This record gives sequence, C-alpha cells and structure tokens, in this order.
Amino acid sequence: MTKQERGIRTRLALIRSAAQVFEQRGYAQTHLADISSQAGVSNGALHFHFANKAAVADAVEAAAADSLHRAARTAGERPVNALQTLTDISHAFAVLLRQDVVVRAGLQLACDAGRRPRLNFHHTWAECVRRLLGRAGDEGSLADDVSVHDVTAAVVGATTGFLSMHRASDEWLTHRSLTGFWRLLLPRVASPQVLATLSPEGTAPGADTSTPVPERSMSESRPGSQLAH
Amino acid sequence: MTKQERGIRTRLALIRSAAQVFEQRGYAQTHLADISSQAGVSNGALHFHFANKAAVADAVEAAAADSLHRAARTAGERPVNALQTLTDISHAFAVLLRQDVVVRAGLQLACDAGRRPRLNFHHTWAECVRRLLGRAGDEGSLADDVSVHDVTAAVVGATTGFLSMHRASDEWLTHRSLTGFWRLLLPRVASPQVLATLSPEGTAPGADTSTPVPERSMSESRPGSQLAH
Repeated sequence: MTKQERGIRTRLALIRSAAQVFEQRGYAQTHLADISSQAGVSNGALHFHFANKAAVADAVEAAAADSLHRAARTAGERPVNALQTLTDISHAFAVLLRQDVVVRAGLQLACDAGRRPRLNFHHTWAECVRRLLGRAGDEGSLADDVSVHDVTAAVVGATTGFLSMHRASDEWLTHRSLTGFWRLLLPRVASPQVLATLSPEGTAPGADTSTPVPERSMSESRPGSQLAH
Repeated sequence: MTKQERGIRTRLALIRSAAQVFEQRGYAQTHLADISSQAGVSNGALHFHFANKAAVADAVEAAAADSLHRAARTAGERPVNALQTLTDISHAFAVLLRQDVVVRAGLQLACDAGRRPRLNFHHTWAECVRRLLGRAGDEGSLADDVSVHDVTAAVVGATTGFLSMHRASDEWLTHRSLTGFWRLLLPRVASPQVLATLSPEGTAPGADTSTPVPERSMSESRPGSQLAH
C-alpha cells in the first residue's frame, strides 16, 4: 500500500468513526478526541486530514450525499417507468439508511440545530421526486385527478418521517413497511393501465428481502467500506 | 396579582423563553443565562423554578405535550366519523406548530440526540392514529383493501416528515399542503359511501384558512399565553 493509499484509508476511517460518534452523541457533544480514538489514530493524524469538527461534519455530510446520489443513479438506470424508478430509489435509500452509519449521521447532521448544514437533503430529494413525477406525467403514468405537487409532498413527507422515526425504532424503515406505503399510494397515483406493471416492493435484483438486514455492531464495522467500492 | 399568580406567570414566561432559545440554538448550545435574560428575569428566579437545564427542557416538552393533547381532545369531541377526526386533529396540530414555539421546541427536544427525552411523541401519535383508524374500521369507513397498519405508517410518517421539513421551509405545514395530503390519501383509504362526507380541509369552525398564519416575532410574543387559556 502506498502512502497515498494509506492516507485515503485513514480519511475514510475517520469519516466512519465520526459518523458513529455524531450519531450517538449529536454534533455539539462530540469531541475530536472521541473521533480519533474511535478510529484508532492519533489526534495529529486527525488534524492532518481535518482542520476542526465542522470540517469533519462537512465530510460526513458529503460522503452521505455521495452514497445517496450513487444509489439513486443506479436505481435510475433500470429501464422501468418513472413511478417504478421512484419506488426503487426509495427502497435503495432505505437499505443505505439501515446499513450505513455515514448516511444516517450525514442526514442527522443536516438537521442538527447546533450547526450550519452545508447540504439541504430535503430540497434535493424533493427535486428528485418532483422530476420523476413530472416524467411519470409525461409518460401518461399518473392518474388524472392527482397533482404532482401533492404526490411530491406525500412522498417526501412520508420518507422523511420514516427516516426520522427510524432513529427511535427500526420498524419504520423495513422493506416490509416501505412496501406497505407504496401498496397504499401507487393505486391512488398511477393510471389504471400502468398500475398492473408496478412492483411496490421494488425491482432491484436481489437487493432486499422482508427480513431486516442486521445492523453491524461498531466492533464489526469496516471503516470506509461503503465508500471504497 | 397574588404572589402565587406571579410565580405561575414567571414559570410560563421561562418556559416560552426556553423554547425560543432551544429552537434557535439546540439543547446543547443553550445556557441557562440566555433563558433568564430572554425572559427578563434574574438567574435566581430561574433557579427557583428549575434545578437545571434538563428540568427546563422537560418542562418545555411537557407543555408541548399538554397543548397537543388538548388540541386532539377538542378536535375529537366533534360528532364526525373517525377519518374526519383524524384529518381535523392533523390540522389542529399544524396550527399549533405554526403558531406556538413551545410546541415546536418540545417536539424538537424530543428528537435531540444530545439529551434523553422524557416523552415519545412519535409513539403517542402513532397510537392515536392507530386507534382512530381502528374505529374507522369498526364504523365501516375504511376501504376493503387497505390495512390499518399501512395507513397508520403513511399518516404518522407523512405528518412527522412535514414537521421536520417545516424547520427548513414554512411551505410544508400550511393548511393548503396538509389539505393536499388528505385529498390524496382519503380517496384511497375511505370506503366509497363515506368519502363524499369527508372534508380534507378539516371541519374545525373558523380554525384555519389557506393563508398561512403569520409567525409572531419574538418581540411581540406574549410569554405563556398559549398555556394560560
């Protein structure tokens, strides 16, 4: 491993450790020493990569955004209609949130009253949903009596709510509960001829089952693995 | 005014001031001196009422819960079917959240990673929604092919999401946007004969309009007024 590779690996380990500590304690209660100790590196190594706590939080936020964007892009590449793409993206996000502490912490940091977030996830997600529903309208996949605005609000609202409640209880972001949401919503928003072609459970090949994916414990976690691929 | 009345008034003023500071800075970044100075009382007076910051936060949370319970009870007393009651309660909550900083701060404190909340608003709200939907099922108001579990998740998820997004932008909790949500959901979950009787915009007499109620500025705020009636 070259020196540069070691540097990248350390940076990813610090981002993951920071996410773990931020998630547990919140931004204001986190000290840089907790992050370096959790990552098993010296304070000096941490300061080589990040000027201060705000810079670490920004990096966690950016890594979370990157993972979400990549998941959305992958789901968006499948040749299905726009309503199915939207369903698939929501399932892909739920998998990430269940499995990836960096994504969870990044979204939590973006709502933390104690810091100034760099990214506006709600806005970006709302834009993505609005664009896909606009495409569904162009394709003739939307029912006549629903408005893109109302469906956007319902989808963004519910998914944001599931995420925020997921912090208290795992049941809100299981594959089963998200499938239940789409089973409820799709018959209302899809045109009759399109509805029969839609899968509320998502179409990602082998991506998910109704069994919740076990959360990796901190001792088993592999620093930076979700960013390395 | 008796000494006891003055004491009650000071306590309510402290709760409102605490809510304003907690909402702006988050729990961890709030100091007791900010709260007493915002309320225009001495540190000694604050300590007479509250032992420490955690006790102030608990009082804000309890006051928020009290306001929400009273709004739900009032909406629940109207002689309408259970789906309409649920719609009406959601509108009553939205009015409180737009107008009352104590309710907003109480809900925010309940999700703050930096403290141990005393109340679980999501759980209480989910129980309320589940009970009303169970009653709607007993009344024969629910469509045959929807499950109480899925509708509960969608309603609790969406309303929780609207609340969390309301912190970034007012548009998510307007009367108009919440009405749009129910206009989308009710035709899917209500039985056909009940649907025609339902008002997605709520049935509270003169309680709301499509024009957002202006937020009172801090200088205009009347300490404790929302708890005094």
